[in-house]
Amino acid sequence: MDSKKKISMAVIRRLPKYHRYLKELLEKEVYRISSKELSEIIGFTASQIRQDLNNFGGFGQQGYGYNVDELYEGITKILYLSQPYNVVIIGAGNMGQALANYPWLQNSGFRIRALFDVNPRLIGLKIRDLEIYDIEELEAYIEKNDINIAFVCTPKEKTQKIANVLSKTSIQGIWNFSPVDLKVNSNIVVENVHLSDSLFVLSYLLNNREESEE
Amino acid sequence: MDSKKKISMAVIRRLPKYHRYLKELLEKEVYRISSKELSEIIGFTASQIRQDLNNFGGFGQQGYGYNVDELYEGITKILYLSQPYNVVIIGAGNMGQALANYPWLQNSGFRIRALFDVNPRLIGLKIRDLEIYDIEELEAYIEKNDINIAFVCTPKEKTQKIANVLSKTSIQGIWNFSPVDLKVNSNIVVENVHLSDSLFVLSYLLNNREESEE
Repeated sequence: MDSKKKISMAVIRRLPKYHRYLKELLEKEVYRISSKELSEIIGFTASQIRQDLNNFGGFGQQGYGYNVDELYEGITKILYLSQPYNVVIIGAGNMGQALANYPWLQNSGFRIRALFDVNPRLIGLKIRDLEIYDIEELEAYIEKNDINIAFVCTPKEKTQKIANVLSKTSIQGIWNFSPVDLKVNSNIVVENVHLSDSLFVLSYLLNNREESEE
Repeated sequence: MDSKKKISMAVIRRLPKYHRYLKELLEKEVYRISSKELSEIIGFTASQIRQDLNNFGGFGQQGYGYNVDELYEGITKILYLSQPYNVVIIGAGNMGQALANYPWLQNSGFRIRALFDVNPRLIGLKIRDLEIYDIEELEAYIEKNDINIAFVCTPKEKTQKIANVLSKTSIQGIWNFSPVDLKVNSNIVVENVHLSDSLFVLSYLLNNREESEE
């Protein structure tokens, strides 16, 4: 895992799904599973599962299958989920507020510290115990509070300007909900949640129901 | 386009991005573009663009490039975005309310008709002019109001039960925000927005910044 072999994005995008299903197995007190059984519940082929996990040194043992706990912990580490992150939300509109209130996030290692907005009617208000600050204070706040990740939920016209500000900071990642593709400093990783793209795919599939996924 | 050649999901998932960029070009009053220029702004190779669009009969003309308006309208049709959809939102919590309030959706062909929830404190309230109904009324409402799509924003424990109810209706598509993979009637298309999966990918990438996207 330290040799930093290049892992394809397709594999990386499957990892959270393993994580999700393994967590469920643990909740159901299933501690051992064959790649065939795992395949049946997760929907990848057994060979795909073995290949995916071999990228990280492999976890299973011939004739035993996978130790669910070990595999879950392994994938948690591969995804760097055992460390906490300090997060700010930029844009305290509907989506920003929904994320601030999202119970799942509150129990995760992604610790939301504050929200930022341009709207004077929002600045100074609180979402739960989280203050909404003036966007002008963003850069200073990030540096002072060791913020790693920004969730960006601004209107698309404003988003590149925000990305420019973030590019001057030590922020490492942007989770972008705005329907634009951002230009950022090469130190910053951007992961997009383009909701309209997803909805348009649904529209296509709904009218082409003979098409199969992948 | 009518021969119903099977289009790969990778192509389908790129279509909304074309749609988005073409719309922007039109807003900037750009009416003609070469595949090379389009490639530079959208980030796919010119050859990829030609291949993608050839799946649908091709739009460009050798030596002329693409007529932006024609291409935009073409992709709008391929994605079936020129027809309206009737939508219900199931789960009127943070995410459901954020979607109900999403300005972009209000101006789209995805017409949100009502919300549904189990919580007696929410039932009867309104989000904008949209009523929140008792989930018990869901099945009847869908049939009576010719609903095509359900946005599902329920807690994960409840979601499969909702999917079972939806499977008994004439609904055609589910946009699923709940972090579970649903089992539904084969007539129903499911498109997932698994937010935690996306955030976990960000966590991975942020710690493996030498990895490149694809």
